[in-house]
Amino acid sequence: MQQRVVIFGGTGFIGLHVVRACLAAGYAVTAVVRPRGDRENRSAFQESFDGDLTVLSGDFTAKTDIRSALTGATDVITLVGSTVPATAVNDPAHELFATVLPYVQFLDLAVECQVQRVVLASSGGAIYGEPQRLPIPEGHPLNPITPYGIAKATIEGYCAFFEHQFGLDTRVLRLANPYGPGQRVEAGQGVIGTTFHRLLEGQPVTVYGDGRISRDFVFVEDVADAFVRALTYGGSERTFNIGSGTATELREVLALIEEVTGQPIKRRMLPDRPFDVRANALDRSRARACLGWQPTTPLRDGLCRTWEALRAPNQTRAVVDADG
Amino acid sequence: MQQRVVIFGGTGFIGLHVVRACLAAGYAVTAVVRPRGDRENRSAFQESFDGDLTVLSGDFTAKTDIRSALTGATDVITLVGSTVPATAVNDPAHELFATVLPYVQFLDLAVECQVQRVVLASSGGAIYGEPQRLPIPEGHPLNPITPYGIAKATIEGYCAFFEHQFGLDTRVLRLANPYGPGQRVEAGQGVIGTTFHRLLEGQPVTVYGDGRISRDFVFVEDVADAFVRALTYGGSERTFNIGSGTATELREVLALIEEVTGQPIKRRMLPDRPFDVRANALDRSRARACLGWQPTTPLRDGLCRTWEALRAPNQTRAVVDADG
Repeated sequence: MQQRVVIFGGTGFIGLHVVRACLAAGYAVTAVVRPRGDRENRSAFQESFDGDLTVLSGDFTAKTDIRSALTGATDVITLVGSTVPATAVNDPAHELFATVLPYVQFLDLAVECQVQRVVLASSGGAIYGEPQRLPIPEGHPLNPITPYGIAKATIEGYCAFFEHQFGLDTRVLRLANPYGPGQRVEAGQGVIGTTFHRLLEGQPVTVYGDGRISRDFVFVEDVADAFVRALTYGGSERTFNIGSGTATELREVLALIEEVTGQPIKRRMLPDRPFDVRANALDRSRARACLGWQPTTPLRDGLCRTWEALRAPNQTRAVVDADG
Repeated sequence: MQQRVVIFGGTGFIGLHVVRACLAAGYAVTAVVRPRGDRENRSAFQESFDGDLTVLSGDFTAKTDIRSALTGATDVITLVGSTVPATAVNDPAHELFATVLPYVQFLDLAVECQVQRVVLASSGGAIYGEPQRLPIPEGHPLNPITPYGIAKATIEGYCAFFEHQFGLDTRVLRLANPYGPGQRVEAGQGVIGTTFHRLLEGQPVTVYGDGRISRDFVFVEDVADAFVRALTYGGSERTFNIGSGTATELREVLALIEEVTGQPIKRRMLPDRPFDVRANALDRSRARACLGWQPTTPLRDGLCRTWEALRAPNQTRAVVDADG
């Protein structure tokens, strides 16, 4: 019998790549999807993958749904949470209700259902706050300055507590800025997705500050590969940065996208937003040493593939709902 | 007109010393007290202090109460939160509902009411987790392993967010293990308080592990002095360890208490609890450099004063309720 992995958020942007990578690695996969998803899309989603994929209807905030999804499961990947960090600024407590409390309940149920390992998608972009040095190692203090980053830090804390107190094996992947095919460009998910979307719509791209803010962009298929590796890692490290290791300025990204698409981008300049950290690049040496992971897709190649996918009519997109 | 400071939790163990220290420093004080408190005790509480003290009825979870307490206030000290960290283990999400969510609402209202400075009591004992080195400096990573510690870290994160986003000046005092007169010994508040209580009742003291777990004990009047200093500090540091700087093993504390009281303590040995960190001592050099603060009461003297207060009939105790 194949080993089964349960993926919450399996139909979101990162999720669909993680589902595909797990199936390709020989796992049976249960993707848990929000009940309000559209049935037709869901079956199209299921059919777009090769392998033993079950799509299960379930709400991450509902105990009964979580319990049915977890029954008999040994490995779980969670990709739930806000997709648009900036909105949290206007309603600071929202993340606590929307992601932290449900996550604590989920961990409780994972213990009850005797799950062996949980791999959590955390945020390498938001959790460290303003970096004291670049690239940022996992031991860097967590000084998040957004409710989104605070929520991720709180959830990581609860993972550590459940591991320490109840023996639940939890591993944390702190993702840099994933981009690639399937990104929900119309929802403002990620600067690269948003830029492509604006370009397709003929709209200007908003640039905050001087465009020299830098981010660590990592191709979504490389990210998916890290999740597969984290499922079988047997060592003692719990937390891994998953990023390219390189800080790329936003103005460079825009120039690369112009090059890849052959189209000029209109820029609308706005002042800095106080919740944006200036620079980010994650030290990925631990992931390399422990998981044997490293990103294989250079930014230019990844942008080409994203652009191709956006122009293809039948791409597999994040259907049903963004984050399970 | 005197400057007024609003103290939430002003009738708890630490609170009553902070109230007294603020009055002694010339502040007018508004102590906010839970509505279910006993009226008679409250007026006795008020009369037990010299100075301009107003006791206001208010629930820290009620917007209207917070708003009335904050109207016209420039400085606020918050001493709210669980007093018995260990209980949180059995209901991990409780701290989120009981302390984190109300605190976020409080910060929101503090911005609305144009409060200038908030001084938060955080936990130097629970927030760092297992220390990487002793004494622990403020820059040490936060790896809390209890819901209590996680909640404190989350609240600190929100303080940083509100400062960064809305300009609310927030300062954080990470308290080691405060002890002294007024400790609610019967509620299991603190190992020293509990030990005195058991001694008075002729009960054995529970010792977890080998008794070599160490803690940083700091006399509550020294703690109160740190709050007064934090109200006027004008520098750029936001977070301060408030502790003795010394790790004292629990078995040493028991021996000192036997010496001070002249009475033998019965010990009941139990295995280690997984949520207890082994050792704790806070590096207090930043508080010394920035606040001019240092503890002035050696442990033996503090234990003597605690013992005297426990035997005095009319001590000022934490009346009304523990943590406002």
